[in-house]
Amino acid sequence: MKLEEVIARIQPVSEEWWLKAGEYLNNLAIPPGSLGELLDLAQRLAAIKETLKPSVKSKAVVTMAGDHGVVEEGVSAFPQEVTPQMVANFVAGGASINVLAGVAGARVAVVDMGVAADLSEFVREGKIISHKLGYGTGNMARGPAMTREQALQALETGMEVAAKLVREGVELLATGDMGIGNTTPSAAILAALSGRPARQVAGRGTGISDEALENKIRVIETALEVNKPDPADPVDVLAKVGGFEIGGIAGVILGAAYYRVPVVVDGFISSAGALLAKGLAPDAVDYMIASHRSRESGHGLMLEELGLKPLLDLNLRLGEGTGAALAMNVVESAAQVICNVLTFQEAGVARNETALS
Amino acid sequence: MKLEEVIARIQPVSEEWWLKAGEYLNNLAIPPGSLGELLDLAQRLAAIKETLKPSVKSKAVVTMAGDHGVVEEGVSAFPQEVTPQMVANFVAGGASINVLAGVAGARVAVVDMGVAADLSEFVREGKIISHKLGYGTGNMARGPAMTREQALQALETGMEVAAKLVREGVELLATGDMGIGNTTPSAAILAALSGRPARQVAGRGTGISDEALENKIRVIETALEVNKPDPADPVDVLAKVGGFEIGGIAGVILGAAYYRVPVVVDGFISSAGALLAKGLAPDAVDYMIASHRSRESGHGLMLEELGLKPLLDLNLRLGEGTGAALAMNVVESAAQVICNVLTFQEAGVARNETALS
Repeated sequence: MKLEEVIARIQPVSEEWWLKAGEYLNNLAIPPGSLGELLDLAQRLAAIKETLKPSVKSKAVVTMAGDHGVVEEGVSAFPQEVTPQMVANFVAGGASINVLAGVAGARVAVVDMGVAADLSEFVREGKIISHKLGYGTGNMARGPAMTREQALQALETGMEVAAKLVREGVELLATGDMGIGNTTPSAAILAALSGRPARQVAGRGTGISDEALENKIRVIETALEVNKPDPADPVDVLAKVGGFEIGGIAGVILGAAYYRVPVVVDGFISSAGALLAKGLAPDAVDYMIASHRSRESGHGLMLEELGLKPLLDLNLRLGEGTGAALAMNVVESAAQVICNVLTFQEAGVARNETALS
Repeated sequence: MKLEEVIARIQPVSEEWWLKAGEYLNNLAIPPGSLGELLDLAQRLAAIKETLKPSVKSKAVVTMAGDHGVVEEGVSAFPQEVTPQMVANFVAGGASINVLAGVAGARVAVVDMGVAADLSEFVREGKIISHKLGYGTGNMARGPAMTREQALQALETGMEVAAKLVREGVELLATGDMGIGNTTPSAAILAALSGRPARQVAGRGTGISDEALENKIRVIETALEVNKPDPADPVDVLAKVGGFEIGGIAGVILGAAYYRVPVVVDGFISSAGALLAKGLAPDAVDYMIASHRSRESGHGLMLEELGLKPLLDLNLRLGEGTGAALAMNVVESAAQVICNVLTFQEAGVARNETALS
């Protein structure tokens, strides 16, 4: 799949089905609007899938893993070896994303986009998908994180992962990430695309101290100065201050929009991917569902840039796709509401005539 | 079950298990605290059930139905016959609560606490539980909604419904309501127990106009003046300005606390029941989980009085138990996290030493 072609074919959702679904939902045997955001979501699912009976039964969370050269600068509270250790935990089924995806009835597809360790054993066993673009990115405080070619590959890889899952019947996608240090490139992407200062977009990630946060802000400032990413060119931003897994996430989202499949976006890192996807194809936002507002301080700004309101606000800041997995149940609920709640007429329930007049 | 005995036996959750669970959760292979409110909830489930492996697999939503004499005063946008029509819809499985409980994997127990229609056909078919205390309450704007004896019966009935479900193996309860006009007694209960003025606690219910809202406020003021409920005596408040289904909900919550089973509280009407339960047995709050913040304007005040933070905020205002059913999935997720996410040691993942020091 070529980026240019995919971008050119991403369309806004059908206005005709949007209106049709809105009218249908107004006839459900409930006080008008009383299921709040579930109704908005049901309407969007109907518009995306162009049916009044949208199904999101078959679900997959794509957890993209990658490492970051910028950890040399001391931006994370955890050592880099945690990235492959957590991939091993995903494979063993003992991580939070396995457990929460299990509750949601979703499979987890783990993709090695560029972990700084040999994961070929898991690839041979068929436990993870490998599209390794390197053993971690370059240190963006000293030069670009990756080449433009690698950035394009990261995006196209993500699109292909989405395509594969859609071909296998997946009706609802979600994104997740694993990569020690990856709140730093995510904050840098937000700064580069929005023009906001590093201090406004940087947060405490996995839990760094005041001092380490000051260092992180300086590192992001340096990375932006050294690389001068072009805000009008999201591929350039990804290449200079991004990450392999963040590019992969952006690609999954573009692939979902291309195939008209809704995609639940996890927290801070996934939203950085979503921002890149929006920069490349503004209509892709129609297919994105913001799962939650992360405790990571810059996430609210990211959601603002995306123009999305999150479904949950539970002080999560784990990543892996955990917030997206939790929100998948809300999406399933919205789909079931439009599919199965009876109308006033079907249920034989009297309408509120005054509210209609 | 006698109210006095149940109240006397409700205990706060185990501090020992609370501390033990907190320590255990700190060892999960995630950055400290990064699953936010899921961890708080998991800790509470462990403390309630006195185990590090709390199960909430078997779930039931109790939807209590009743009618209200106060509808004579024009407080609702819907006619009273909608209450039995919606009960018929619950029985047919086509209502929002059936659909959302289905997604949560919960059964729905519908209880006729005092619907103003003959529902004996559904009782004979075993489709609903009947504890009919009357054909609707009295009009509280002219006198007490019910006798003190009926109020006690409503509470004890709710406790018995909880007892029956717990005996059948239910590990997680939720409350819901159906009753045209029932935001008016719910607001009156809040006003009576908290001393807040009617204007502050009354909202638009199923969607009444500005003019109808002014009328509703006057009706609540009149009901409080006519009946003078004693804020120190929740049974008196229930009798004078409550409702049969609201008493039933309070009883379910007390029963849950008595049996040490967590109970998910739905929106405005269920929270009025929870307020009564708290008034009768303050420690019962330990077993309550606030599911969502309703769009009904007084609900935030109710949650404040309860001292509970809701899990969801999706602009719902339907009732039936729909918000509670949606939140049950979050509760299940929290239980699964403590039961199944591996610790750092089990997963072979390096800890963040700085965060520990």
